[in-house]
Order: sequence, then C-alpha cells, then structure tokens
Amino acid sequence: MKDSTPIASLGEFGLIDHLTKDITPVNSSTVKGVGDDCAVLEYNDRQVLVTTDMLMEGVHFDLTYVPLKHLGYKSAMVNISDIYAMNGTPRQMTVSIALSKRFSVEDMEEFYSGLQLACQRHGVDLVGGDTTSSLTGLAISITCIGECEKGKAVFRSGAGQNDLICVSGNLGAAYMGLQLLEREKAVFNSQPHNDGQPFSPDFSGKEYLLERQLKPEARGDIIKQLREAGIQPTAMMDISDGLSSELMHLCKQSGTGCSVYQERIPIDYQTAVMAEELGMDVYTCALNGGEDYELLFTVPLTDHDKVIGLKDVKLIGHMTRPELGRHLVTGSGQEIELKAQGWQSNL
Amino acid sequence: MKDSTPIASLGEFGLIDHLTKDITPVNSSTVKGVGDDCAVLEYNDRQVLVTTDMLMEGVHFDLTYVPLKHLGYKSAMVNISDIYAMNGTPRQMTVSIALSKRFSVEDMEEFYSGLQLACQRHGVDLVGGDTTSSLTGLAISITCIGECEKGKAVFRSGAGQNDLICVSGNLGAAYMGLQLLEREKAVFNSQPHNDGQPFSPDFSGKEYLLERQLKPEARGDIIKQLREAGIQPTAMMDISDGLSSELMHLCKQSGTGCSVYQERIPIDYQTAVMAEELGMDVYTCALNGGEDYELLFTVPLTDHDKVIGLKDVKLIGHMTRPELGRHLVTGSGQEIELKAQGWQSNL
Repeated sequence: MKDSTPIASLGEFGLIDHLTKDITPVNSSTVKGVGDDCAVLEYNDRQVLVTTDMLMEGVHFDLTYVPLKHLGYKSAMVNISDIYAMNGTPRQMTVSIALSKRFSVEDMEEFYSGLQLACQRHGVDLVGGDTTSSLTGLAISITCIGECEKGKAVFRSGAGQNDLICVSGNLGAAYMGLQLLEREKAVFNSQPHNDGQPFSPDFSGKEYLLERQLKPEARGDIIKQLREAGIQPTAMMDISDGLSSELMHLCKQSGTGCSVYQERIPIDYQTAVMAEELGMDVYTCALNGGEDYELLFTVPLTDHDKVIGLKDVKLIGHMTRPELGRHLVTGSGQEIELKAQGWQSNL
Repeated sequence: MKDSTPIASLGEFGLIDHLTKDITPVNSSTVKGVGDDCAVLEYNDRQVLVTTDMLMEGVHFDLTYVPLKHLGYKSAMVNISDIYAMNGTPRQMTVSIALSKRFSVEDMEEFYSGLQLACQRHGVDLVGGDTTSSLTGLAISITCIGECEKGKAVFRSGAGQNDLICVSGNLGAAYMGLQLLEREKAVFNSQPHNDGQPFSPDFSGKEYLLERQLKPEARGDIIKQLREAGIQPTAMMDISDGLSSELMHLCKQSGTGCSVYQERIPIDYQTAVMAEELGMDVYTCALNGGEDYELLFTVPLTDHDKVIGLKDVKLIGHMTRPELGRHLVTGSGQEIELKAQGWQSNL
C-alpha cells in the first residue's frame, strides 16, 4: 500500500523545499529560481512572453479518473502551448497550488513529477510559486514565461485576407478521450461495488484518445519546423477551445472572414471510430471539442509551397474579406456559417 | 439597491473584455497586454523579477468583512510588495480568478477597481489573466513582474555578520486590525438579527488598524529613499509572515545569527492600545503577527549614518556570527531565542 504522509508534517515551507530540492535550472535566462521573494530572469535583447492559466477541481479536471501525475503534466503543457502559440520558446514556470487536507505529500510528489516531466521535455525551469491550503478542492495556477526574438512574436491579429489557414496534428481526439473517460465513469458508478471484482474499464484500442485527453503535447516541434522552413506565420493561436471558436477569434482580431473545408480537417481514425460508437458527428467533435492543443496558424499565399512540405501540418482553408463571413464548406460544396460552441465555460 | 448582473450574461470572454476595456499600458516594457495567448514584454538590459501568490476564500480572506474592492487592492499590493522586496520596480501583473455563481458582474467590477487602483498607484500594467469558474469559493492567483538593474537585485542571502537590521513603518498593526474585525464579526454573529437595528461595528479610533489590515501599502517609497541615499541593502524581504519568521529566513539564508532589540521594534500607538484591550503582549503581536508588508533589510555597518537619515525606517538590531544564535534582547537585557510562530498556515 502506498504511503500517505500528511502535509502538516512538513509544513508549507518544508513542502516547497521538499518538492523543489532537485530542481536545477537549465536556461541561462534563469538567474535565480525558487527560494526568494521573486525569481530573477535575464532576457537581454529578447522579448519576454507571459501566460497564465487557472485550473479548478470539478471544473477543469475530475480526480476520479485523472491521475495527479497526468494532471501535473497537462497543467504545465497547456501553458507551454500558449508560449509556442506566440512563436516563442518556453523558459520558466511558476506554479501555485491550493490543496485541502485530503492530499498527502505523496500526492504532491506525483503532481510535481508530472509537472517536471513536461518542463524537462520543453526545457522549462520551475522558478517559483506558492503552496497554500484550500477549504475544498484543488486549485492550480500556472504562469509560464518564454522568449522570442524581437518582432517575431505572432499575434492573433495579423492574418491577411488571402492567407492560408493551417492546423497541426488532428482534431477532436482529446474530446473523444474525455467522452470515453466519462462513459467508463458512468459504468463504474452504476455497478455494485462490493462484488469483489476489480473494475476494468474498457479502453482497448482507444489508448490514443486517452493520451490526447490526459497527456497532451504542446507543439514545439511545429514551431521548430516553421523556423527551419523560414516561415513566419501571420497569425497563430493554440486550439484549446475548439477549432471553430479559435477561427472566430482569428477572424475577429484580424478583421477577416474565412472559408474552411470540412474534408480537409484532420481527424484520426480512432476519433472517427469513437464518434461513430457514440452516435456523434465527427466533424462537430473536431470543430467544437476542446483541449487538442494543436496550433492554428495562417501564412501568406506566397508560403504555400513551403507550408505543404511541413510534417504533420494540414492546409484547411483560407482567410477571406470580412464581408464574406466565416464559413465551413462541406463536401457537397454547401457553406455553413461557423459557430463558436466552443468548450463550454461553467460561468 | 445595487444591480446584480449574472456573469453568464456576458460569458467568460465578455467578462474579461468588460473588465479590461479601459486598461491602457503605461510602461514602455509592455509591448502587448491583454488579448492574446501571451503578454509580450521588452526588458532589454534589465533583469526581470517574477513573483506569484494565490489567495483562497476562507483561508486568506473572509468576505463577510472584506469588501471586494479592498480584496482586489490587497491582492495586487502583496505581489507588488514582493517586487520591492527584491529592490525592483513593479511593471506588469496577470490576474486569474475562479468564481462561483454567487458572484455578479458588479462584484467583479468592484474587485477589479481595487486591483487597478493599486496598479495605478505603483505604475503597474494589467497584461493578462484567466477568468474561470469555481464550484465553491473565490480563488485568486496573481503574478507580478518587475524590473531591476543588473546586479542590483537584493536577495535574502546576502547579509553579512555585522550588518545592521532595519525595518520600515511599524509592526503588528495589520494583525490587530484582523483581531478587531474578528471580534466585531463574533459580536455580530451572537446578536439577534431581526431587531430592525442595523449593526454598527465599533471601529472608532481604530481606523488605522483596519486600514493596515484591509488596505496595506507596499513600500515603494522606502526603495526610492534607499536609491536616493545610495544605499544598496545586503539582504531584504517583505514582512508578510511576521518579523520573527522573516528574521529566521534572513539568518538561515545568509548564514548568520542576529540580535534584535525589543524596545527598538516600531509599534504604533493604536496597536499598543488594541493589544492592551485584548490582553495580548504587544511585542508578541509585532513579532508574530503577519501581513504588515513592511520591508526588513540589512545594510553594512558603514552605511549607518546614511540609514539613520531615512524617513520611517528604524534600526532594530544587527546580524551576528551564526553560532551566537538568533535573539531578541529585552529591555532588561535578557536574551530570548527567536521562534518563528509566523502567520499560521492551515496546511
């Protein structure tokens, strides 16, 4: 059986010391990390990027099926993804957690091990944070800091009226992973629990969907490819709320319309199978399911030949004059107005 | 009667737009504020300071007596204070809030008005954040970013063995303010509430204590004085957990002992009166009461004449060799070992 050390036995400062004792900064921009009133960073002639996200138990994650290590990994990754979405390189992170008495030192070790794995993969230094108590659930707040060459940051507002629209990877898989977890949770809850049989959720053949939901990967590899190919996107953002919603943001902030071709939206085979199983329209899932953390970006028409050579990037449409509206073009040529159903906020 | 607009009527993005629409950055280091995946900052040859704090309802604040405007002000101020505590200048802030359905748009306007007032007073730009929902109470996470000339950041670890120990302002007042609020809350709760008489808490003559608790001021003025006087402190931190606890941090990280003279600890008249009223030892309150947000710093002996000329700064003792221990010297010359009772964490 797993040990469970009460956090009170270490105290707040002891817990922070314990969790951060093995952290050695890898970036030259990290002058001073954990352990003082502030972290000290040095960026010289680079621009500094800052993003922050807050994750609340019961709203953003459900600990009945999300292991704490995965939660740590994902919490870090969604912030790292925002730095890439500006065409930047992630460098530092601060992590604040508020936790109730039901969490142990070992729980926090799990959470931090996931967090640090994500940071290591993307060369990010953990430089500070806050650990405190919560009367109820777990609350997590992460701030990620990155850098970018002056003038190279890519905003949501820079797309031109004829720019090509590209996405990385495939869409809808994380949403299908969530549906799968929710389905198995419902099965579990409806079964009698005292039959002596351990519960075996049926995830076979669907591991990819689970991974996309529980362990998303920020697309630093795409940013690297773009640089190597000499492509400077005109606008970019990561897809956290669903393609449809993000396209609306790009169009609104860039002052354009858009046409996106349904058949060009990249969808994984497992996503399609799962949608079929659940009787859902797979394009609806790809357009409105959230948490894919793929990159959505636009490039000038003149970069067409460069962009089609990129690995794991798909051209899905183009920007238009704003008065033409924002449309999804179906296989039969029908134009449907895009709606941002998005990832429902509980507010 | 006050309006109460449900947040759902604006939605998450609408709420952020509404709350941030009047924000105009004042710092040249703010290249891009609210509205994209990241804020973009430019610091050139300066070092970047980053600090973060998380505040949870029921743990860090009690909305039965803390108005939301004050909460916003204080939340910003405690982070600004950390930047000053590094000898820096605060410049940007990100704010994340998770709120439950009982909060209205007007509540958030109140919170933001306090936050922005604090930011304006200290020249800080609000550059981003996250607004989301909470199943229970209010959670606030703030990250403050500042700057500092290279090599001028002051850490906790730099104090020498004979350095003089200084504090700004006076201590224990914020703690007495909290006691006062808690006392009036208890009186309120013990009274029958249907007698038609509005409850009038008895705060007369104690406004200063309330202000210290509800509306603390980060000591940027002291940092300014230090610069003007040509004093570079050897170690510094702000007093958030109580003088005793902070002295222990400085000694531990600097590898020194210390002697602090009880009679030199600055205490306001109202703090002393309130302690008397409550039958508490005023020095215990000044040593262990938290949230004063005064600055504690050390300077070399050679700066003695400069430091005694500073306004609202008091010399309270000196660092010693580590083997001499950490002591409070009473009026009668008795040496008492310092203990970090601190500001009790609920962990």
